[in-house]
Amino acid sequence: MFGAIEAGGTKFNCALANANGEVVAKTQFPTRDPETTMIDVVEFFTHTQQTHGTMQGMGIGSFGPINIDLKSEHYGRFLKTPKPGWSHFDFLATLQQSFDVPIFVETDVNTAVLAEHSNGAGAGCDNVVYVTIGTGVGGGIISDGRLVKGGIHPEVGHMLLPRHPDDHEFPGACPFHGGCLEGLAAGPSMKARWGVPSETLGDDHIAWDIQAYYLAAMCINLTSTLSPQKIILGGGVSQKPGLIDRVAAQFESLWGDYLPLPGSGRVSDYIVLPQLAPEAGLVGAIMLAQQAGQSPR
Amino acid sequence: MFGAIEAGGTKFNCALANANGEVVAKTQFPTRDPETTMIDVVEFFTHTQQTHGTMQGMGIGSFGPINIDLKSEHYGRFLKTPKPGWSHFDFLATLQQSFDVPIFVETDVNTAVLAEHSNGAGAGCDNVVYVTIGTGVGGGIISDGRLVKGGIHPEVGHMLLPRHPDDHEFPGACPFHGGCLEGLAAGPSMKARWGVPSETLGDDHIAWDIQAYYLAAMCINLTSTLSPQKIILGGGVSQKPGLIDRVAAQFESLWGDYLPLPGSGRVSDYIVLPQLAPEAGLVGAIMLAQQAGQSPR
Repeated sequence: MFGAIEAGGTKFNCALANANGEVVAKTQFPTRDPETTMIDVVEFFTHTQQTHGTMQGMGIGSFGPINIDLKSEHYGRFLKTPKPGWSHFDFLATLQQSFDVPIFVETDVNTAVLAEHSNGAGAGCDNVVYVTIGTGVGGGIISDGRLVKGGIHPEVGHMLLPRHPDDHEFPGACPFHGGCLEGLAAGPSMKARWGVPSETLGDDHIAWDIQAYYLAAMCINLTSTLSPQKIILGGGVSQKPGLIDRVAAQFESLWGDYLPLPGSGRVSDYIVLPQLAPEAGLVGAIMLAQQAGQSPR
Repeated sequence: MFGAIEAGGTKFNCALANANGEVVAKTQFPTRDPETTMIDVVEFFTHTQQTHGTMQGMGIGSFGPINIDLKSEHYGRFLKTPKPGWSHFDFLATLQQSFDVPIFVETDVNTAVLAEHSNGAGAGCDNVVYVTIGTGVGGGIISDGRLVKGGIHPEVGHMLLPRHPDDHEFPGACPFHGGCLEGLAAGPSMKARWGVPSETLGDDHIAWDIQAYYLAAMCINLTSTLSPQKIILGGGVSQKPGLIDRVAAQFESLWGDYLPLPGSGRVSDYIVLPQLAPEAGLVGAIMLAQQAGQSPR
């Protein structure tokens, strides 16, 4: 058996999977303070192991910022985060107290890109970027078949973008950078900008033109910096019907007659929706658990 | 012996080096049309080999866009480029007609980042970005000790940035994107903006505040996207005395009280000048030639 956790800022998804990666038990609960949340995590895996058998490894795809450097003594520990109670919480050590198995920790977007690269929208591509646009904006990058880890880990969400011509008054909602990508385009930022949740904004509201512009500009910057073969837009906000077509149109307009896009050359084959959503993060965490189970102790 | 070429858009540097990487002969000539330029290249290596001995391999660090995918049938060939005569020119095949040795091809910024990562400003760091700001803007990225290649190759130069508050009238000089990073901050763009070459602008000209802002915003985007341990600013424009300190100050202001920077945590240790300039590209091309010489034929 393999244990997988998709630890999101709003909710936790836990699953127990067999050696074929098939889920045999799963649960979901809200993310509260770390101590309370971990009681639910430990209880789920303790009980399901009694029914289904012992875990050989665990994989975590977590919200960040979190240390994902296997060589660091702080591997698996959160960095400073605005999320109350979670700054410097040692996720890995706490889990390891209850489960004496190999555990690998990645960001949630890294497990999502691992899954989409393996079996989803990025299959067959060596260079894939996955960006989630939801409560926050986060990115996972695969270059030449391997995760780009960096010194801490890529975030993508705090990049700076030009302003849409009709959006110069809103200061942005990022507590650190005001109008960075996350401060302009994440779900809470859209809510702060328009006064209502983004999912209640009508299809022809100018909000979606502005949103498409920011996501297209983000895709330009990812293209210029990483030259990926696919950009996958995940997360709740990206699910808005028709949004991805608007992003594609704005991307074409911003990119102009520059280098040809990879593959078919069509934007619609380059900027795409996930194929495994909303399970991509959990599927990737199962893959990570299998890698952990095969790792030397 | 090993042959190295740093092929820039303005000039070519060629060197013959011994097994220790020491240069035994070198030359420089202007970049003209490919046929004329290649005559000089072939002549240099033909003559110097007669004096110093036979080459075991060659390395090229070239301006782009150029195919650097070893697995591609078009490896070593230019893509479409605005540089007259160079679109689709097959650099590798032309060189291979005269020199029957293994030849590796990278972008000039990739050879520069290889050199700075090995022996220069990025030594000891697994994650390094090198950006040259000169005739154009180009970037080379090392992640976890390996070059990030992408589907074509990273460029960095065409990312989109917010406008400096005092710079809303200049449309930008990039023929494809107007006011992208290259269209705002490359040498020719500064000249188009201010009417004189950037090196003649006085130290207290507002041009340098605006320039520092764009380079700082670029560094924010590279940090958010790649989480490097060092950002190295190369190229002629970066050499302006005092500019890097202004970039650091603007970066601190834009980054705010967000995640700590790597290493010492000081911006002055994070955004740095090259240590091997102006030779970094050529030093990296020698390293590449040595790798080529050791590769299976």
